[in-house]
Amino acid sequence: MMLRILNRTSRLVAPGVRAFSSEAAGQQKALVITEVDDKTGYATVTLNRPPVNSLNLELLTAISETLDDLQNNKSRGMILTSSSNTVFSAGLDIMEMYKPNQDRLREFWSTLQDVWFKLYGSPFATVAAINGHAPAGGCLLSLCCEYRIMCPNYTIGLNETQLGIVAPTWFQASLRNTISRRESELALTLGKMYTTEEALKVGMIDEIAESKEKALERATNFLNLFRKISPVARAMTKQALRSKDIVELEDNRTQDIDLFVYAVNQPMVQKGLEVYLENLKKKAAQK
Amino acid sequence: MMLRILNRTSRLVAPGVRAFSSEAAGQQKALVITEVDDKTGYATVTLNRPPVNSLNLELLTAISETLDDLQNNKSRGMILTSSSNTVFSAGLDIMEMYKPNQDRLREFWSTLQDVWFKLYGSPFATVAAINGHAPAGGCLLSLCCEYRIMCPNYTIGLNETQLGIVAPTWFQASLRNTISRRESELALTLGKMYTTEEALKVGMIDEIAESKEKALERATNFLNLFRKISPVARAMTKQALRSKDIVELEDNRTQDIDLFVYAVNQPMVQKGLEVYLENLKKKAAQK
Amino acid sequence: MMLRILNRTSRLVAPGVRAFSSEAAGQQKALVITEVDDKTGYATVTLNRPPVNSLNLELLTAISETLDDLQNNKSRGMILTSSSNTVFSAGLDIMEMYKPNQDRLREFWSTLQDVWFKLYGSPFATVAAINGHAPAGGCLLSLCCEYRIMCPNYTIGLNETQLGIVAPTWFQASLRNTISRRESELALTLGKMYTTEEALKVGMIDEIAESKEKALERATNFLNLFRKISPVARAMTKQALRSKDIVELEDNRTQDIDLFVYAVNQPMVQKGLEVYLENLKKKAAQK
Repeated sequence: MMLRILNRTSRLVAPGVRAFSSEAAGQQKALVITEVDDKTGYATVTLNRPPVNSLNLELLTAISETLDDLQNNKSRGMILTSSSNTVFSAGLDIMEMYKPNQDRLREFWSTLQDVWFKLYGSPFATVAAINGHAPAGGCLLSLCCEYRIMCPNYTIGLNETQLGIVAPTWFQASLRNTISRRESELALTLGKMYTTEEALKVGMIDEIAESKEKALERATNFLNLFRKISPVARAMTKQALRSKDIVELEDNRTQDIDLFVYAVNQPMVQKGLEVYLENLKKKAAQK
Repeated sequence: MMLRILNRTSRLVAPGVRAFSSEAAGQQKALVITEVDDKTGYATVTLNRPPVNSLNLELLTAISETLDDLQNNKSRGMILTSSSNTVFSAGLDIMEMYKPNQDRLREFWSTLQDVWFKLYGSPFATVAAINGHAPAGGCLLSLCCEYRIMCPNYTIGLNETQLGIVAPTWFQASLRNTISRRESELALTLGKMYTTEEALKVGMIDEIAESKEKALERATNFLNLFRKISPVARAMTKQALRSKDIVELEDNRTQDIDLFVYAVNQPMVQKGLEVYLENLKKKAAQK
Repeated sequence: MMLRILNRTSRLVAPGVRAFSSEAAGQQKALVITEVDDKTGYATVTLNRPPVNSLNLELLTAISETLDDLQNNKSRGMILTSSSNTVFSAGLDIMEMYKPNQDRLREFWSTLQDVWFKLYGSPFATVAAINGHAPAGGCLLSLCCEYRIMCPNYTIGLNETQLGIVAPTWFQASLRNTISRRESELALTLGKMYTTEEALKVGMIDEIAESKEKALERATNFLNLFRKISPVARAMTKQALRSKDIVELEDNRTQDIDLFVYAVNQPMVQKGLEVYLENLKKKAAQK
């Protein structure tokens, strides 16, 4: 019943790789797995960069291309989920920011912006089936969707201040589109990670589902609510509601990239990343 | 105790009609019945275009003129209700949009804008006593008021996407002024019709009243809350809070009309209206 | 354990007063008492203009200077409270508006704007321990903080319409940053004073504490939540979230002062103040 239409690796793979050997290409893991149910037409998009779906340039590019595919195919709905049993997405890959190549750093941030534009403003309906922890960038992806169903015993939040950084205004706007202004201020200044139950209480998620399977089932139920609704009217309504947030970033794309690049290149930030990575290594060595 | 001050038919009635025969004029039903309580000074404005208060140009004009009258008479408060037992207002009259005269179509939409400006930004306090279903434009009228009391077993909502159309940004703004951003997005993309109980839960209405009589009584109670408050301070406060929404439409009146006229004239939309009207005829014939 | 760092009287005291006699200076009551806990680094700022902390130019100036001191000392947190047992602050001092000196009137309003900019946009975390009634300007000060803990059996609200005046747009913005748009409209048009319990229900306050002592303790608990969070990231996040409100007043400072001065000088307003003050005198005489 399922038709696999596209497994995106990312456009960064050298053009020859796939051509060289179809077996080699087959073995190359897709970073994003897209399955389209041929009955409903809904696409299940699974983030698949083990172990924790850290958002590096390649994964973001694969997501961006997947969103293009869905739009070009006039998808009626998308469910975003993770191939991991414990993590939806751990957020931005810290390795993109440590001793970065400056061109790649700019492209990294620009691609994150692309993903946000395409997901937050998508014409098709979107649901996140959050089957694991969703901090920072992981939370952002789910906030871009129109509905969130989360499995128990995980955490979710824009915890940037806990990491010593500031969530960009478009991250903040995505949260404010979902929960109250008051709760957004507390959430963002505290960098609070909400448990599944807490997230439901403040409206950061819409439902709790016992398992990934149940979450996918309920996500389909949500998409079904739109079955008799004109896709064009639906898309225009959604985009009108979100347009101010979208225009605000459109008008500031370059400044937003400049600000990110400037911040990442601060010696204090680089030192912080170095210490963080050394601690990670030590922990790994102790195991 | 009640003083009937004005029953508006609309300025579209040819000037000679009333003059020709006072009896004929007397038989002509008023589209909007306004009764002012001479004790409280509150006006009860009853929509009276049977069977379902469809908002055509004449009814909108009568509402617009009624709002002018209330403002000119420095009304202290208005209660908006319906003469029907089952429908508050069924929304815009579809006949205004099917094979339209282009001049009248523009005037129709411009008059709806007028009604919105005058009601959403009225200096006097406003309450909707929603004694029947209130879809689309019917819901809009109630959202323009400052307080909503609804009778049980009816439905209310901006269900435009269910009809294949898009609620204009000022319809959306009126909803967002009332319920949360999050619920607004769900309500508008789904085109959801809320039951009385659901509407109370999300804040789309403020109270439930068992009957129209009780609703009118409670509406009076709400207006009484302002009795010791300076009408000028009250009006300026309300208008300051709603000014951004109002200025946004003021700055885009003509484009908003152009967009509406363009959409209505699309062959696909005209075809859709034709099918819809044929189905209505068939249903009527089967009865 | 407490280190008193600064008791502000205000810059309006003639420069020679303190120098003339240190005893005289010692006897001069500080309008704002600031105590910094040397363990936590948190400042407790106590409004101290008996009997009801009416906000006159001198008190506002003392608050403004205190906020400068805290910012210059890179405070980690501030608790705002009152030395009165019954009133947090009664709001703006009516004597500043009755038969005013025009220069002082402008400075009075400009200083209130300063206090708002510095408190609403403060880099350090802020909590209000509301140990008494907080109408109008008193409520505003608490809304500028990031968290509100209130003792039982008091009232709080922006009750300007009850006084026949209009809360400026930045007062309104501070309320909308805290409670829902819908509740803000009701609160501001009605000029509603909320009991402690009602304020908790609508989110105007965050916690109820049995006594001032408990309120201060819980305020410290709230500030402790930020102990492991980068103060710079926290400050930038808060300021980004509040920036639109701040920029709006920055862009309209002079017009906002002009509007206030114009309104106060209206003969009707002056007459109203006169009647109000006469009634106060009569009441005082009857006691």
